[in-house]
Amino acid sequence: MMASDDKILARYRVLSTASEIDTLARSMAYEQTVEVPAALIRDAGVRSRVVGTVRSIEAEVSRQDSFCVEIGYTAELASEQLGQLFNLLYGNISMYPGVRLLEIDLPESVTGNFHGPRFGVQGLRGLLGIYDRPLLATAIKPRGMPIEALARLAGEFARGGGDLVKDDQNLVDADWDTFRRRIDACAVAVEQANQQTGRQCLYLPHLAGADAELDQRARYIRERGLPGALVCPLVMGLDRSRTLLDRYGLLGMAHPALSGAYTHGEEHGIAHAVLLGTLFRLSGADISVFPATGGRFGPPASACRAVAKALVEPLGNLRSAMPAPAGGMSFKLIPDLIETYGLDTVLLVGGALHGHSEDLCASTQKFAEAIRVRCGERCRPPLAVASSCELPVAPGAIRSRLAVLDGFHWQGREDRPYKSSHELDFAGVRRVELIGKSGEACQFDLRYFELAPGGHTSLERHAHTHVLIGARGHGWVQMDGEQQPLEPHDVAYIAPQRVHQLRNESAQPFGFYCLVDRQRDQPVAPGAVGEA
Amino acid sequence: MMASDDKILARYRVLSTASEIDTLARSMAYEQTVEVPAALIRDAGVRSRVVGTVRSIEAEVSRQDSFCVEIGYTAELASEQLGQLFNLLYGNISMYPGVRLLEIDLPESVTGNFHGPRFGVQGLRGLLGIYDRPLLATAIKPRGMPIEALARLAGEFARGGGDLVKDDQNLVDADWDTFRRRIDACAVAVEQANQQTGRQCLYLPHLAGADAELDQRARYIRERGLPGALVCPLVMGLDRSRTLLDRYGLLGMAHPALSGAYTHGEEHGIAHAVLLGTLFRLSGADISVFPATGGRFGPPASACRAVAKALVEPLGNLRSAMPAPAGGMSFKLIPDLIETYGLDTVLLVGGALHGHSEDLCASTQKFAEAIRVRCGERCRPPLAVASSCELPVAPGAIRSRLAVLDGFHWQGREDRPYKSSHELDFAGVRRVELIGKSGEACQFDLRYFELAPGGHTSLERHAHTHVLIGARGHGWVQMDGEQQPLEPHDVAYIAPQRVHQLRNESAQPFGFYCLVDRQRDQPVAPGAVGEA
Repeated sequence: MMASDDKILARYRVLSTASEIDTLARSMAYEQTVEVPAALIRDAGVRSRVVGTVRSIEAEVSRQDSFCVEIGYTAELASEQLGQLFNLLYGNISMYPGVRLLEIDLPESVTGNFHGPRFGVQGLRGLLGIYDRPLLATAIKPRGMPIEALARLAGEFARGGGDLVKDDQNLVDADWDTFRRRIDACAVAVEQANQQTGRQCLYLPHLAGADAELDQRARYIRERGLPGALVCPLVMGLDRSRTLLDRYGLLGMAHPALSGAYTHGEEHGIAHAVLLGTLFRLSGADISVFPATGGRFGPPASACRAVAKALVEPLGNLRSAMPAPAGGMSFKLIPDLIETYGLDTVLLVGGALHGHSEDLCASTQKFAEAIRVRCGERCRPPLAVASSCELPVAPGAIRSRLAVLDGFHWQGREDRPYKSSHELDFAGVRRVELIGKSGEACQFDLRYFELAPGGHTSLERHAHTHVLIGARGHGWVQMDGEQQPLEPHDVAYIAPQRVHQLRNESAQPFGFYCLVDRQRDQPVAPGAVGEA
Repeated sequence: MMASDDKILARYRVLSTASEIDTLARSMAYEQTVEVPAALIRDAGVRSRVVGTVRSIEAEVSRQDSFCVEIGYTAELASEQLGQLFNLLYGNISMYPGVRLLEIDLPESVTGNFHGPRFGVQGLRGLLGIYDRPLLATAIKPRGMPIEALARLAGEFARGGGDLVKDDQNLVDADWDTFRRRIDACAVAVEQANQQTGRQCLYLPHLAGADAELDQRARYIRERGLPGALVCPLVMGLDRSRTLLDRYGLLGMAHPALSGAYTHGEEHGIAHAVLLGTLFRLSGADISVFPATGGRFGPPASACRAVAKALVEPLGNLRSAMPAPAGGMSFKLIPDLIETYGLDTVLLVGGALHGHSEDLCASTQKFAEAIRVRCGERCRPPLAVASSCELPVAPGAIRSRLAVLDGFHWQGREDRPYKSSHELDFAGVRRVELIGKSGEACQFDLRYFELAPGGHTSLERHAHTHVLIGARGHGWVQMDGEQQPLEPHDVAYIAPQRVHQLRNESAQPFGFYCLVDRQRDQPVAPGAVGEA
């Protein structure tokens, strides 16, 4: 199955009689795109561009009354976003009785909208300095233990030679303070262990909480110097999870909570590989945790192998992600797991590791040793590995004070070019990024602009707002053709999509502060129809 | 089943042999709470407070090898948030082969964390001025039609006497500009129709898009004067959807996209009533759209009735929500639907209405008439109903210019009390809310504070940051015990959790701008452990 003509291809298993399958397949194609009967499509363009196309129907050899139906959807129906892609693939037909999504193939016009794994297999290995064996991971649990006890577990695992320690997905703090104290305690325990061992174990807290607090929590994880987080994409929302990982530059370990609703059975839902493989990878997962054969959830081995394959097979320009078979993995399964999934695998062992002995450090050593032996890892000196604080950071430096200098310059902040784009017309603009570009933990940026006599900013509009405060000299704000003065300490608000420009018609410099949302769209020229 | 001892009660159908059901039920209780085997729980408190309790196991009379298992979970395991409640009820056991969540009962310590429907049945009726019959709703579709054609459909439906017109859930715009133009066009069409009819039809656009744009889109819907939105909670994330409806005060019509993954079958997943009834209601749905018997999805009639019941039965202090049976509802089903669901129902008719004739206005009149006849509604004069622009709005007014007046006052902005809390110590502080409190579409607030000679702000800390710009006079910023001067145009950044205070030790007023994130936590005194 190859994407063609900028189509999203989806292959479904459909239960039906031979006499009804044609009609049913066509209904599915209508259901997922236009949701009206064929007779109601009066617009020829809608019929040709929007309605899904049934590309093939094949009877399944191994089952009676079961067909593979391939439907093609125009790529733009995914609306460049992950939630709508999910909806397009299975939204309404999830309510059909016998339809299972087996495989998808996405064109680059779809995959190109998503960064996917930020670190990927190689990036994760680079953080750890481990290149030649599977990674050993565990979860901190159970919920209800004192913070100190949870932190101790994290530290012991790190000291024993574990690579990744994550929060259990049940560790969800109602309040900010507990979240912060728990994360801090576990991070410190792992950091101290790392100092002792000279190794680099990574701690991944569970990014969860009331939706309104998720940004704050993600930002805290990032600022605490931790490399990433455990996320439950189906609890939080696939695109919500993607956005948070992306916005805060976090490595994502995706947990399959709720996924069984989709993957259960063979005649309904979504195949493991599509959901926990491709869609989770699109959502930015660097590691995808999935229930593995041999454990207590026991999906078929073929489904597990298909997840692992979907995490590494070509998918636009996206990086590969690591499979993390889990759900009751035991000591004796280690050889099988390595055999099945290869070296680029995270072996996530929970209860078996915690229950192996009362000394988690010793148990971890034993598991780690078993992995090393299995992979023939030679004894190597401790590596000088990238520490999490060496992760890429924004340029500039966070400073608590930016003293103003003569002529409206600031200590520690240089002038920057006003715009890199050559498409918009402007003249004589000086720009200083005061707050935001150095990674300060706020949702907005504070900039200072100064227009030389006769200078002006570009005439533009955008969805984000401007808040301006006059700082120096006298200038004009033009908004939808209207002119307003801006004097020192005047405040101006430029609402979304207002066409605007700042002008200095005086003989002195005109300076003003400009406040914008950190997350914002690109300005466009007034006549432009789309976003730049 | 009654909640007791602050427990969340969940009743599951579990497929098992009689000899294994006890062990399986206990595993479920462990799986959902501590996710380790019983032997590994060394802490007695965890065993008694955290591990789920199997309260009863009953063989199902009508099926072999099928049991009803009731498990009690300590309410605090839901962590006061909806995503974690969802996870607690079904996260990991979704991956068990034969477990279906049939019923839940929630104590007020859980329901009290959520506002639920903002309008509810009565509020929605109040918006429309219709109290004695079901409401007629339709969807604008298909995707791919020009904006003008979609808007025309909305207008015709409103003119024909329809009550609620929503976007199809496939209408998802990749870019902001199309979203805005489409919403505007449909809103104008419905407003013009309402002016002609003297009635009040409500337009509910689909709130969808890339996660990073959802706030902006929700705000736009609100600022455009529209009362609410269509949301897909399972696409967006249950708590994400709840938060957006709540934050922007929107009436929510919840769509069941992807829900079939959960509700399909009888031996796995989640019962319709729990998901589309209780959980959607907790997520703030005023109207829950669900696939109804008689339509093309065809769940059992008992499941549909159970959804309707879950939307109105007592649930903490939450308002009732309206059921909207849908998915292929036809003209001839109207009497049955009214008979089954009663008067407090939204009759959502899509294809049957659009296909009834080429004149949507005439078709709508016919459907509306059929509803009125069926309900014996007497002919009444047009009511003076609440218009959507009479919905509560934020105090103050958005202004594009706040000219500064003498003494650092601003046109259109009054001084406000510095703090309402009496717990924190402060003196001589004047506060002006320049931008944010009037509903400006930015993610931050701009305030001006002025300290009289000898004045000081409270000594406090919080997770959000401050960015300060000196405006007038000379003052000091104290941060974790260190003092820094703040002169006009100096910029200061106060990082998360730094204990800080502003002081004026001069004989002149000391004024500064203070920038904060719109979404932020409450300050606490330096020694406090929790949030104020």
